[in-house]
Parts: sequence; structure tokens; C-alpha cells
Amino acid sequence: MSQKFTTAIVGATGAVGQKIIEKLVERSFPFADLKLLASKKSAGKQIEVNGKNYTIEEATPEAFEGVDIAFFSAGGSISKALAKEASKRGAIVVDNTSAFRMDPDVPLVVPEVNKQALHEQQGIIANPNCSTIQMVVALEPIRKQYGLSKVIVSTYQAVSGAGAAAIHELTSQSERIAEKQPTSEILPVKSEEKHFPIAGNVIPQIDVFNEDGFTFEEHKMMNETKKIMSLPDLSIAATCVRVPVVTGHSESVYIEVEKENVTVADIKQLLASAEGVTLQDDPSEQLYPMPYFSEDEDAVFIGRIRKDPSSEYGFHMWIVADNLLKGAALNSIQIAEALIDEKIL
Amino acid sequence: MSQKFTTAIVGATGAVGQKIIEKLVERSFPFADLKLLASKKSAGKQIEVNGKNYTIEEATPEAFEGVDIAFFSAGGSISKALAKEASKRGAIVVDNTSAFRMDPDVPLVVPEVNKQALHEQQGIIANPNCSTIQMVVALEPIRKQYGLSKVIVSTYQAVSGAGAAAIHELTSQSERIAEKQPTSEILPVKSEEKHFPIAGNVIPQIDVFNEDGFTFEEHKMMNETKKIMSLPDLSIAATCVRVPVVTGHSESVYIEVEKENVTVADIKQLLASAEGVTLQDDPSEQLYPMPYFSEDEDAVFIGRIRKDPSSEYGFHMWIVADNLLKGAALNSIQIAEALIDEKIL
Repeated sequence: MSQKFTTAIVGATGAVGQKIIEKLVERSFPFADLKLLASKKSAGKQIEVNGKNYTIEEATPEAFEGVDIAFFSAGGSISKALAKEASKRGAIVVDNTSAFRMDPDVPLVVPEVNKQALHEQQGIIANPNCSTIQMVVALEPIRKQYGLSKVIVSTYQAVSGAGAAAIHELTSQSERIAEKQPTSEILPVKSEEKHFPIAGNVIPQIDVFNEDGFTFEEHKMMNETKKIMSLPDLSIAATCVRVPVVTGHSESVYIEVEKENVTVADIKQLLASAEGVTLQDDPSEQLYPMPYFSEDEDAVFIGRIRKDPSSEYGFHMWIVADNLLKGAALNSIQIAEALIDEKIL
Repeated sequence: MSQKFTTAIVGATGAVGQKIIEKLVERSFPFADLKLLASKKSAGKQIEVNGKNYTIEEATPEAFEGVDIAFFSAGGSISKALAKEASKRGAIVVDNTSAFRMDPDVPLVVPEVNKQALHEQQGIIANPNCSTIQMVVALEPIRKQYGLSKVIVSTYQAVSGAGAAAIHELTSQSERIAEKQPTSEILPVKSEEKHFPIAGNVIPQIDVFNEDGFTFEEHKMMNETKKIMSLPDLSIAATCVRVPVVTGHSESVYIEVEKENVTVADIKQLLASAEGVTLQDDPSEQLYPMPYFSEDEDAVFIGRIRKDPSSEYGFHMWIVADNLLKGAALNSIQIAEALIDEKIL
């Protein structure tokens, strides 16, 4: 296919924006012109991509004239202000924020799971929350073969999901880990009143609280999983926890399948050949996924698959992925690639 | 009560042994003579306790002559070799290792839960695993009032449970967190072939693996909980994970109660006045337990109590405690205090 696409990246200077640029080049995405958009503050800066210099432009409605595909990763308010402007001008938007994820008119897509939903797009496609993506990649092959009735997940989430300032907070606190009462200004949520150390700590709060005691991060995991997997009645609950890890989300997941007599061997065999999955499950070799070794990797790593000792239908597993890649940049590009494959773009 | 007891501490130079000495003094435990026992290597060293110098003696069978109560915290093999020798000489042993925990003739005791089991002692009482203790303190008041049919726990365990060398490994790796491929020699299990970094990582292995894919740490949590709570048919599964935290185990726990129409407010009210528990549960104030703030605290902290969105009987909660105190030293001393209260000692 020789067709090339004018491609815009909104939030090009951010952590995910940078990863999107890296991955576009690495995967030889067929971009013609590349428009790197950011806030007025960053406009005029130069970024080198694949040996060529690009100048950052201010993200304005007019900047999307002639754009075929636009990756948004500059925060929910920017997406709310500009995504419709971009799609009005003919671009298909792949939005990495939570702005449109639960909008019934916006497909929420993980290509391994629900690529077909792309055909319902009306100009905007939402990229799910990082912690959701890696889980549904692991659960979809199981659902397809054995059904899925219940999910209970506890997460171990890296700080890079909270941005560069959070990474800096972890790194600088770690370097002085013996020091008591370090300065904390970013985590758990920058805009919240209280901030807590992350080095040598775990914080059971990601995003702000809802009235029911769950955080919005937890609601995202629960609601987005139901939408992506088309399982509105799935019994699902999440507990989302920040841990002192730079990059790589881990998840301890309990599931119940619907079919009888499913074995650990069945599930391992299924996941060994599942799209986007790398099975790392051999206790005799101490082989299991860990965030430290998932950084810069595209795959969703799955291991520690065990039969629940008392529930006929219950299984436990451990799922790890690079939250900036499969959890964000990579999945966004895979959506764009699927749009090309499906001849939507 | 003016009776005083000759008290021995086996493993007096270790992390838990030191905490036992500290807590004996702090809680004014009625010790007459104090015998500090350790390996031959440490014998002869002096330790100051409450302004008085004590000389470490080698732990031999004869060293227990005249001892009323002996706290063992020097590893399973030492307990296996010497606990019966101590009890033969008239001492009651409180053993902090896993050596006798599942022995049907040995009570496994968390005083808030099953103090009455102390009356069945035959010279040895086992102190449960750290991650088990804090969980049963939280679950027992709920079981008593509402019944308990199911537990699914994912842990976030501190490195101090793996000893001083593991603390050093975390601290030194943290100070150079930007460095890739740090030296790792201790975690996850010193005697295992492979070792992985803990700073900037989480490791889903604590202790070695069983054939069913669960680790022994996970089996400890499952079996010990059933024994302590006298619930042999409890549906319980654990996933035990090491996180880069020095001290303080955290647990994300899902439970199902047996009674209908139990509310979050019911459980909060129950736990607010439960023995050994400090309720920290106010999302509007970002109040929830964290390991960083549990260090050196006696309580089991509970927060983030939520109703499961789909299971009529399901609740989620977050439990944190100092694994060296309530998880080890403190619980051992509370066992001894209960032995005095119950006039067994």
C-alpha cells in the first residue's frame, strides 16, 4: 500500500507524545507530513524525527486543516476543546485521554479485542486507560473460549502514568530513601490537597474519589472493560494502587469463567498464541512478568496462572505491560493501523 | 500482679529479635531475668536493654534451664532443633517461624482472634506469618458479626520481611535507581537461582513455589487463616507480591460475608471499635492506610472499604500494618501477655 497520511500529534512534547513519535517511526507508519502540535508555550521548538527537523506548532482548530489522522495526548481539556474541531476538518482523531471514552458514539478500542468497533466511528476513537488495555488483552482470548463472568483486579501502577513530574518525584525521593519526610508535591493527584511520598511507599489512590468510595481510575477500569469487551453485565471490581516503579503496570487478577472443567493448561495454551500476549509462566524457572523487564516492550506479559483452590470456575493471574506503550502510545498507533487495514482511513 | 518471668529471646540480634526486646521494655512486660540467645558467632556480644548490659549467650538446650517463656525468632531450623528442648525444660515457647504453625498440636494464635486456643498449648505456641496476622485481625470482627465465606487477597509486601540484607539491597539499589542492571543477590529468595532488582520493580514471588503454582507464602496465608479463624472450608486465595517498601505490608482484600444487607457503614462501625484496629477510611480527606506511615505503629490500619458493585455479599478493603511489629514481634509478646492473663504462664 503506497498511500500516506498527514499525521498530527497533539501533545508532542509530553511523555506519551514522544513515545507515539518513536513508535510511528519504528513501525514505519505511513505518515506523509507530520504535524507536531502542542501548547503555545512549546510552539517554535524543534524536534528531530527520523533525521528530519520538525517545528512544533500551536494546537489550534486551523492546525488540523489537511490532517488525515490526529493522535491526541495532551489532557482531557485539550481533547474536549479540539478533537471535534479536528474531526470537523476531516481528520480521524485517536484520543488518548478520558474525555470521550464513555461517550456511546465513540468507539473505545483495543485492536486485539474489538477492532470491529472502529466501523462505528464518527470521527473520534478513544484509546482506553492504560490499566484497562493490558487487562482486556489478557482476558479477551479467555472470554472468547470459556466465557467470563467475574473479574477482581488489584493494580500495582507505575508513576510514569502520572507524568514526568511524578517520575522525577519518585527518582529524587529514591535517591534519598533514608531521609524521612521527603517533599511530595505530585502524588497521588497533583490537584488534591494532600501529597504523600511514593519512594518506600504504596498509595491506594489514583485519580480522585467518587462518592461510592471507588476512585475514578477504578471506575475507568470497571466501565471501560465492560464497554470494550461488550459485557455490560460483567461483575468487575478494581482496586488501583500506585507503587514506586517508574514504568510498567502490574495487575493481580482473579477471574471466573463460565465453562466447566477449564484447566490452567487450557488457559496457558490459549494465551501462548494470543495476539499481543507473551506468556511468561514457568515457576520452576522463576519465570513470571515483572515491570522492570517490561519497559520498552510491546507485549502484554502474563504469568502466575493458577486455579483457584475453591472456586470451580476461578483462576488467578498476573499481568504486566509498559503503561506508556501498550497502555498508551502503541495502542493508539495500532488503532490507526487497524483503521488503514479496515480501509476506514 | 507481681509475678515475674525469666524470659529468653532466641535470635536476639536479628531484626525481629531486636523489636521483641524493644517492645518488652516499652510494654513493661514482667520479665525477671532476660536471656539473650543467638548463634555461637554472636555469643559474648553485649546488648544494652533498659540501661542494663546483657551478654549474648549461645542458644543451646541447656540455656533454657529455668526459663519461663522463650521467644524464638532465629529461623525454622533453629526452632526445630531447640523449641522442644526449651519446652522440655519447662519454658513455654512462642515461635515466630513457620516450623510448627500447621502442627495440629500447636496453637497458632493472634490474640484478638483466637486467644482461647492458648489453653490447648503443649509447650509451643506458633506466631503466624506476618501477612496473615494483619488480615485476620481485620477479618475476625466481620466474621463474628456477618460470617465470612470467601477471601481473595493480593499483597504488597515490604522487604524487611526478608531480613536486613534485603533492606540493604532495596536501599542501595534505590540510591542508584537510574542505574540499569543493579546487582541483586537476595530477592526474591536468597537460596533460589535467580535474583531480581527490587528498586523500581515488584516481584510476584515470596518464598519458593509449590507444585500447584502458588508460592509457600501464599499457602501460608491460605492455610494459616483457616486454622486461626477455625474456618477449614473458607474459600481463600492469595497472591503475594514483594514491593520496594522497607517496612509495612499492604493488602488489597476482597471478602464475601454470609449475612444479607450488610452495608459499608456497618463494617466501618464494627471495625472502628475492633481490638487492635485503627480505621483510616475517609476518602474526602484522602485518609487511607499507607505503609510509609504504619512503620513503628502497633495497629492494623484498615481503609478503602467499599461494597462490591455486583456481588450482594462482596466487600473490598485495604489493610496495612508494620510487618515487624503486629506481623511479628508485637504479636509474639501479645501471646505471652495473653498467657499471663489466662493464667497459663
